[in-house]
Amino acid sequence: MSAFPDIRSTAMSKLAALLGERLTINSSIREQHGRDEGYITPVPPDAVGFPDSTEEVQAVTRICNEHRIPMIPFGVGTSLEGQVIPMHGGLSIDCSRMDRILELNAEDLDVRLQPGVTRRQLNEYLRDQGLFFPVDPGADATLGGMASTRASGTNAVRYGTMRNNVLALNVVLADGRLLHTGTRARKSAAGYDLTALFVGSEGTLGIITELSLRLYGREEAISSAVCAFDDLKGAVDTVIETIQMGIPIARIEFLDEVLMGAVNLYSKLDYALKPTLFLEFHGTPNGVREQAESVGEICSEHGGANFQWAVREEDRQALWRARHDVAYACKLLRPDGRLWATDVCVPISRLTECIVETRRDIDQSNLVAPIVGHVGDGNFHVTMMLDTSDEEEMARAHAFNERLVDRALSMGGTSTGEHGIGITKRQKLVAEHGDGVAVMHCIKQALDPLNLMNPGKLFLDG
Amino acid sequence: MSAFPDIRSTAMSKLAALLGERLTINSSIREQHGRDEGYITPVPPDAVGFPDSTEEVQAVTRICNEHRIPMIPFGVGTSLEGQVIPMHGGLSIDCSRMDRILELNAEDLDVRLQPGVTRRQLNEYLRDQGLFFPVDPGADATLGGMASTRASGTNAVRYGTMRNNVLALNVVLADGRLLHTGTRARKSAAGYDLTALFVGSEGTLGIITELSLRLYGREEAISSAVCAFDDLKGAVDTVIETIQMGIPIARIEFLDEVLMGAVNLYSKLDYALKPTLFLEFHGTPNGVREQAESVGEICSEHGGANFQWAVREEDRQALWRARHDVAYACKLLRPDGRLWATDVCVPISRLTECIVETRRDIDQSNLVAPIVGHVGDGNFHVTMMLDTSDEEEMARAHAFNERLVDRALSMGGTSTGEHGIGITKRQKLVAEHGDGVAVMHCIKQALDPLNLMNPGKLFLDG
Repeated sequence: MSAFPDIRSTAMSKLAALLGERLTINSSIREQHGRDEGYITPVPPDAVGFPDSTEEVQAVTRICNEHRIPMIPFGVGTSLEGQVIPMHGGLSIDCSRMDRILELNAEDLDVRLQPGVTRRQLNEYLRDQGLFFPVDPGADATLGGMASTRASGTNAVRYGTMRNNVLALNVVLADGRLLHTGTRARKSAAGYDLTALFVGSEGTLGIITELSLRLYGREEAISSAVCAFDDLKGAVDTVIETIQMGIPIARIEFLDEVLMGAVNLYSKLDYALKPTLFLEFHGTPNGVREQAESVGEICSEHGGANFQWAVREEDRQALWRARHDVAYACKLLRPDGRLWATDVCVPISRLTECIVETRRDIDQSNLVAPIVGHVGDGNFHVTMMLDTSDEEEMARAHAFNERLVDRALSMGGTSTGEHGIGITKRQKLVAEHGDGVAVMHCIKQALDPLNLMNPGKLFLDG
Repeated sequence: MSAFPDIRSTAMSKLAALLGERLTINSSIREQHGRDEGYITPVPPDAVGFPDSTEEVQAVTRICNEHRIPMIPFGVGTSLEGQVIPMHGGLSIDCSRMDRILELNAEDLDVRLQPGVTRRQLNEYLRDQGLFFPVDPGADATLGGMASTRASGTNAVRYGTMRNNVLALNVVLADGRLLHTGTRARKSAAGYDLTALFVGSEGTLGIITELSLRLYGREEAISSAVCAFDDLKGAVDTVIETIQMGIPIARIEFLDEVLMGAVNLYSKLDYALKPTLFLEFHGTPNGVREQAESVGEICSEHGGANFQWAVREEDRQALWRARHDVAYACKLLRPDGRLWATDVCVPISRLTECIVETRRDIDQSNLVAPIVGHVGDGNFHVTMMLDTSDEEEMARAHAFNERLVDRALSMGGTSTGEHGIGITKRQKLVAEHGDGVAVMHCIKQALDPLNLMNPGKLFLDG
């Protein structure tokens, strides 16, 4: 059912007058904007607009608001829980043309940019300045999208997530009002934390049209390593002990043996087919050596061996590129399958128990589903490869996902560490927050009374 | 004017039935709950209640809600911008009896506690565990109050503020509903960040009745130092260079020469009467040595000399106690004066310029007002000592405060880095956030439609 009943032609002609050829109903472009990287059945939007500026986004929202047209912000479509899928039709607002870096303040370690800039684009721009932006979800997502889903990644254990690294936002609300949240100051006690409210709101409160981000100086010394373990428990116990000892490790990532096979295949590598940690240390040369020695000892106590070091920039890049391409590697496990990457996050002390139980559950559920995780945060992913046309298999996948989230919640954890709620986990948001969801909905209604901003996400309909 | 018109006796008898002797209208207790540590003229509440539990807070809010009685959460009354002053009368809800530490999870580095626990109480409890909680405003404030004002302190440059260190909250809303925000997971992408919304909301959205906080392991090596500079610019330029080089300094605090005199007098010390930095380094023995050497070089390049080191625990405690007692030391500069401690925060590259201009402005305004700051964050305080009965002097103080905030805003900074908005800076919240204040107010109305939670704070009346 289209969101544009009889007013469709009026709204469309207003949007076309505004955007010209940057408004399209071309079916392949609509299809491309109707799907993400998850398993959910695509739903194309009624049209796709490509605004060039904040002012155009404001004008678009005013038209959509007047004609009650749902608005779905879109970056590059790498969400995993259906966040960009126009469940109720409407206009997909593709921000990829807004891809300029507007102002670099190297001396203050901050940058102001448009939402369509991707994380790799930003880091390539920063490389010559000796700076970097640490948040790195697997995909080369846009920074607007990353802010909207409160993205995270391999560096979060040391540098935090988008929650910690967004200083300020420009947001266009459903009625076209432009909001500036935050300043360039490193901290503030001035009023409600609107920046934090919009980060992670999954496009349900407004459209991000500008971001100010924290940057970091490149460390003097960096070294990466891969270490294989005899069993899953040894690998995860190593992580727990490293974190509990307060070692300021920059990255500590777990991949199970199934995944290592896929990684070897996809990235043409020859790592051992065992539960494996990918590690990275940042600091001064002495500091890195001290950290590496301490973690090396913990590893060997837990059956870790065969450290493979990567110190040269190109070797480290290859190692982490392999890690980031895990989702694509997974596809080799079942080339005709569709990927459903779910994630949870638990207190670190419960991590081994949670992963061991989950591995058993996967096997008992007869699913193809490797485990990979940003384990230093207590966060891990289960990447199911599914035949979405097989109802019985999908039922097993749904039941497994339910148990996974319930297990994490029962351990004091959260239903998602970084992928967000989207469409799939809306019921679990209620299980996690209880009355908190009513409060969230109350805020949603206050800012978007017509429910036009990405409707059908976060909150159950009706 | 009382907030209890003809229903006063009904409401009072219900509250008395609930709280017994823990409800009082004793005038000295009411006076104590009508003031904070700032300069604003006290206004006593109509009554003071001392609930013992979350359930009692819920029952109190239901009665107040029914009878339209303003509710003002109170910890130990160390706010600086009038946050605890009952401008519109009503019931001061003193949480100091809710002072239990409920659950320590040493292996996960988190703790759950009641809002009346103070920061020193918590750190004394944690000492034997080898853990600490880093956020340290000058006063021995309650953690509920610290969360409410998004407090900060000397360690924020390394460990962040209350924004970064509150994992979860229990909050009682104006209508008595109990809300749980967050989990014990280190990160989450599950819905709107309600924890961040309540942190820094200054009691205007609800009453915090429980907090889960992040803890940190005590570092293997800690060393502190005091270093005096020939001029203010040299001291602040040292800070800027240290931060820009990415040295992970744990504390870097600036005190001007006026303040050093007061500190010597109050804490019986004999530091040089010069612009001074208080420094602290945390890490491994090698790491601390490397950091100290790097910062030592930067100091000497900027005219810093006479490093006085404090490595023994008791010497370090004495040094930082002196720093934390600065507000009390200031009183010696004008024993009959009242303290007005205002603060701003700017991007680090503008810090020298901002402090130098501010120092000149203070002198031209003929005010007794030393400068002290958490300069690693770009945050500094001006501690005015005033004769509040002298209208002409107060006019000069207000005009100076206006210029201070406008200067910070014009440099891309914020109107307050850590003291909050309270009563004094409400106009400046509008200057800083523009339409953002309307959005904040919209959220306020959605959660507290009768405006009973700490009315008259953050938002201008009417």
